[in-house]
Amino acid sequence: MVKAGIIGATGYAGAELVRILLGHKEVEIKWYGSRSYIDKKYASVYGNMFQLVEDACLDDNIEALAKQVDVIFTATPQGFLAGVLTEEILESAKVVDLSADYRLKDVEVYEKWYNIKHKSPEFIEEAVYGLCEINREQVKKARLVANPGCYTTCSILTAYPLIKEGLIEPNTLIVDAKSGTSGAGRGAKLPNLFCEVNENIKAYGVSTHRHTPEIEEQLGYAAGEDITINFTPHLVPMNRGILATEYASLKKIKQADGSFSLPTYGQVKAAYEKYYKEEYFIRILEEGVFPETKWVEGSNFVDIGFLIDERTGRIVMMGAIDNLVKGAAGQAVQNMNLLFGFPEQEGLSLVPMFP
Amino acid sequence: MVKAGIIGATGYAGAELVRILLGHKEVEIKWYGSRSYIDKKYASVYGNMFQLVEDACLDDNIEALAKQVDVIFTATPQGFLAGVLTEEILESAKVVDLSADYRLKDVEVYEKWYNIKHKSPEFIEEAVYGLCEINREQVKKARLVANPGCYTTCSILTAYPLIKEGLIEPNTLIVDAKSGTSGAGRGAKLPNLFCEVNENIKAYGVSTHRHTPEIEEQLGYAAGEDITINFTPHLVPMNRGILATEYASLKKIKQADGSFSLPTYGQVKAAYEKYYKEEYFIRILEEGVFPETKWVEGSNFVDIGFLIDERTGRIVMMGAIDNLVKGAAGQAVQNMNLLFGFPEQEGLSLVPMFP
Amino acid sequence: MVKAGIIGATGYAGAELVRILLGHKEVEIKWYGSRSYIDKKYASVYGNMFQLVEDACLDDNIEALAKQVDVIFTATPQGFLAGVLTEEILESAKVVDLSADYRLKDVEVYEKWYNIKHKSPEFIEEAVYGLCEINREQVKKARLVANPGCYTTCSILTAYPLIKEGLIEPNTLIVDAKSGTSGAGRGAKLPNLFCEVNENIKAYGVSTHRHTPEIEEQLGYAAGEDITINFTPHLVPMNRGILATEYASLKKIKQADGSFSLPTYGQVKAAYEKYYKEEYFIRILEEGVFPETKWVEGSNFVDIGFLIDERTGRIVMMGAIDNLVKGAAGQAVQNMNLLFGFPEQEGLSLVPMFP
Amino acid sequence: MVKAGIIGATGYAGAELVRILLGHKEVEIKWYGSRSYIDKKYASVYGNMFQLVEDACLDDNIEALAKQVDVIFTATPQGFLAGVLTEEILESAKVVDLSADYRLKDVEVYEKWYNIKHKSPEFIEEAVYGLCEINREQVKKARLVANPGCYTTCSILTAYPLIKEGLIEPNTLIVDAKSGTSGAGRGAKLPNLFCEVNENIKAYGVSTHRHTPEIEEQLGYAAGEDITINFTPHLVPMNRGILATEYASLKKIKQADGSFSLPTYGQVKAAYEKYYKEEYFIRILEEGVFPETKWVEGSNFVDIGFLIDERTGRIVMMGAIDNLVKGAAGQAVQNMNLLFGFPEQEGLSLVPMFP
Repeated sequence: MVKAGIIGATGYAGAELVRILLGHKEVEIKWYGSRSYIDKKYASVYGNMFQLVEDACLDDNIEALAKQVDVIFTATPQGFLAGVLTEEILESAKVVDLSADYRLKDVEVYEKWYNIKHKSPEFIEEAVYGLCEINREQVKKARLVANPGCYTTCSILTAYPLIKEGLIEPNTLIVDAKSGTSGAGRGAKLPNLFCEVNENIKAYGVSTHRHTPEIEEQLGYAAGEDITINFTPHLVPMNRGILATEYASLKKIKQADGSFSLPTYGQVKAAYEKYYKEEYFIRILEEGVFPETKWVEGSNFVDIGFLIDERTGRIVMMGAIDNLVKGAAGQAVQNMNLLFGFPEQEGLSLVPMFP
Repeated sequence: MVKAGIIGATGYAGAELVRILLGHKEVEIKWYGSRSYIDKKYASVYGNMFQLVEDACLDDNIEALAKQVDVIFTATPQGFLAGVLTEEILESAKVVDLSADYRLKDVEVYEKWYNIKHKSPEFIEEAVYGLCEINREQVKKARLVANPGCYTTCSILTAYPLIKEGLIEPNTLIVDAKSGTSGAGRGAKLPNLFCEVNENIKAYGVSTHRHTPEIEEQLGYAAGEDITINFTPHLVPMNRGILATEYASLKKIKQADGSFSLPTYGQVKAAYEKYYKEEYFIRILEEGVFPETKWVEGSNFVDIGFLIDERTGRIVMMGAIDNLVKGAAGQAVQNMNLLFGFPEQEGLSLVPMFP
Repeated sequence: MVKAGIIGATGYAGAELVRILLGHKEVEIKWYGSRSYIDKKYASVYGNMFQLVEDACLDDNIEALAKQVDVIFTATPQGFLAGVLTEEILESAKVVDLSADYRLKDVEVYEKWYNIKHKSPEFIEEAVYGLCEINREQVKKARLVANPGCYTTCSILTAYPLIKEGLIEPNTLIVDAKSGTSGAGRGAKLPNLFCEVNENIKAYGVSTHRHTPEIEEQLGYAAGEDITINFTPHLVPMNRGILATEYASLKKIKQADGSFSLPTYGQVKAAYEKYYKEEYFIRILEEGVFPETKWVEGSNFVDIGFLIDERTGRIVMMGAIDNLVKGAAGQAVQNMNLLFGFPEQEGLSLVPMFP
Repeated sequence: MVKAGIIGATGYAGAELVRILLGHKEVEIKWYGSRSYIDKKYASVYGNMFQLVEDACLDDNIEALAKQVDVIFTATPQGFLAGVLTEEILESAKVVDLSADYRLKDVEVYEKWYNIKHKSPEFIEEAVYGLCEINREQVKKARLVANPGCYTTCSILTAYPLIKEGLIEPNTLIVDAKSGTSGAGRGAKLPNLFCEVNENIKAYGVSTHRHTPEIEEQLGYAAGEDITINFTPHLVPMNRGILATEYASLKKIKQADGSFSLPTYGQVKAAYEKYYKEEYFIRILEEGVFPETKWVEGSNFVDIGFLIDERTGRIVMMGAIDNLVKGAAGQAVQNMNLLFGFPEQEGLSLVPMFP
């Protein structure tokens, strides 16, 4: 059995890691780290875990933890891991970081968007961006995996094949994303109170959300050039789920008869299938079907649909994930499976729950 | 007292008309028309009206109605009013139509998007598009007012000043709209069941929603040319509210020093104020504040905020309304106030309810 | 114009007072007191009030306030008013207290259930319990009104006539109440986060909730003896509304033919009508109709329905209110109307909003 | 592999059976029966099943089905199974009926409460009431299992040990139950629309709900006498979950010193443990902790808490389940596991999902 420790086990992403790992055949959790609940029974913090988890919470001591486990998940605030990571830790245990500390290759971009001094930039280069469907082989060999953000996972995977294949103009990309409230974490903040969120929808972090440069960097690799996009997240009165509605101008491509025209439905579909046909967790929906977040709730699936609007020459791409699963804990487990050579689906054969 | 009749009084928009008119000093409702509940007490259909409305529902006979009242509101399915409207009716009573029958000036566009044969195109020309803030003077003189759609009211008012002033490229406009579920009406349909909508968000009618040509026509008038846009509505798990997030490329304009550059925050703000400064129902939010649907719930307000993204050269405009008030019944009453020379706010001094 | 000040204007009950008073013809708000937001614009704390309220928040200085206004509303934590109230204040202004400080006549009961030392017990006797429908005449003459709690208003009014008329055994009364989350206030506490409340229902304060002795005291007056009841509140994933489902054993009463048997539907209905027939804000629903919180949302109504279960000899009484209106701010304004001789409905002709 | 067929696979309970059985190692689904969607792909009816279920829906022909499978689940309207069940079917396949057709032993009670003529009363006697924790041994030997109702499962298990041990007066039992909306099924009915349910709570079927006699019959067996109770269900704006709040007068019992007094916390706890200590799916919460439906969502758990109110001499018992799992499909699979000798937890090790 692989031994796992979770730092930040009492946040929503940490709790979702616990839920998933309890059903994983090859892993046992040895450490429930929590800054706020040290020595309290984990099940008293999350009542759903009563009689399923008997352990108490431990502190967030990653050095002590590294000696006892094979893999460490850090579901911690930005800057935490960068402040404590050492070579010794990486020699002792694999690290899957659910924070943003090692996602961006350019430390200046990180420091600007996060407004934090990066305390261990020396590990940035070796960190592998853990978007499994795209970087699978690199993940397998990694010691340090930067688990992608929730919005970014959904936004990138939804547009990736079309950018990679040159079917859309990258700089016309606009991502209008909608998220359930668990993405805001379990901190007791006024804007996240039930009465503030319920019966309400709003945009926030307009053009300034920290996931913007992460999307730009990854899609820039696909485009082969730097790109700049618009990203607008919205808060939706639901617990889980992200829907990304993405707009881009289609490029006219050379058709069989030599003419240049917009790609057809079949051509776009073929681009998606080229990259995702063998991907268990990515489901390209049938023509005319668009994703709903409820269809992926509780699972590691990404559902993608699209529509070509010939009137405007744009494509509307839509992707849906469960932000706590594929957008956080599920993807972290998927990365762990790659790191340890387990079947990629192990622990992740979660059937979406409806209703 | 002006006497009013409502055809379709038992739909959500009709019920909202009742709620608002009960507080209107100059109007009394004489006719609660309903195809489905004839002879049933209105308060048995809407329990909130118990002891407030004693009348029973009558049928949808607009000819009989026209002889008894001064104004008729039709909150009916598309095609109903076009099928029954006559010159006699218009001579007897003013008509405020909450359906789409007379919103589009081009009957072919109507018939294509609605897939209905228009049965009385002869009244299209005289019908006034009842977006009060823009067409106030024409409404005052009208017999037949085409009350705008919910998405369209929000989408148009949010972008109108910038298009009118030439600050954005009209054909780059993308409207990503989110609506509460009351917009789908009170029909007993599976997709509107609680368990299907709750904890879920999805796009629908992508690039094919019928409000698209209405937005294009009205903003086309502002632009002085035909325009084509992308419009994507989404269904949000809440009862009321529409948020429109709108993207467009800013035009570089000639600045004081002769150079051409993107409009500044102040220049954009000035454009909004030019058109809306005196408009009681339109609130231009302060810099850095973006609208939330909950802030306008139950009221006739339109809240508008915006952000200039210099990285991409685009502006993100956001508008919020209560779809049943400014998006339907409230605007209908506002139009009625104009038709009869009442103060425009009469019956509409509704303070938004929070939470 | 009567001048009003609100202490605790930035809590949900305080904000509801603002919403209602903005529509009251005889009152103007002169003081928006708030411990947390001093000098901040009120509309920046409650975005719905943008352009409706231009004032900034002032501190909670009740002595300064008393000299400037005619009536003070205290929507403050338990113990606040008791700690600052003086004879001078009461000589300067009427006080309507939305906290529990003067609701219970027995100071020992207060101190036991609230676990607070009462700092001004000398005012308890003169305070009038402001359940308008029951204590109307005393309220009119009062200086200090103890505005009832939300659960208590609903629980008491639902059972009052049957206890007063001796139709039920008071000590068999069980109140199972369900409340929306605004009753928990606007404090940033983990249990009130959206993700904790949404898709969840739970009981809390089982048999220990502080509204228990308040219900017992008031219904005890009606019974003419001390009574003891079970009261269980539940937290429901909605913003507003309280539903109280109340169970009691019916007493057999002497019928026209001299026999003793359970009261009939008509006899129970007659008891309700004896007390409430002339009460505008209490609506006794028709036979077989049971209240729904949505039917009273945003209004000052109390809806009451009941069912006699002959199998068990019990009656099930159900009452519904909007906890922020009849359960707090609306009732406070109703009390103020009585204090100043205004029509009791002034400012309270709020039509329930549905959906 | 055991072959299973589901009749009524497109209702919410049927869909939950599919979700659970997809994770069951010993079972494969061979028949997705549906009256409404014959020949349609199952995954087009439930988008969450895309790429997980490739089958199309078949009709509801139970005779044809019985020859092809080992077990039939009927998630059908009341009266369906009673109308088609034959000895031949029971000789071919085990039947787990999720409807009420064989739950009540007294056919007259069934016909009175359900207002249906029972068409095959000859099978009532042999049917085993499938409340596994209570009737485990009988279930193992059954051909026909009557799977308990959702409210009844929760209501019975919460009170059973205390009635069995004579700690409470059975006829004082009052069950105030709250359910999520999935219990109302997937039928397109106006009262189940999002806008009717959301932001609302109401009682329904007060004292007339069909689960009443089922609770009375089963708890009557425990009491050793006929009992009569009050049962009031409420509709809560959430998808899943039932919370039963149950009230009963405690019996004074003989204590160690010979006196008679109310049972202590320890004595009540011991009664629960006597029956449930070894039951994996029943979790008796710690003192002072009360169940929340969210803590069991998606799982087969029953969470139970209680409080002794010495002031009134009553106990308040609270139980929570997921109505679609332990209240329907999960319990059906648990019964199937007993029928076929599988480990009782197989397919049911579902960790509750929070949030």
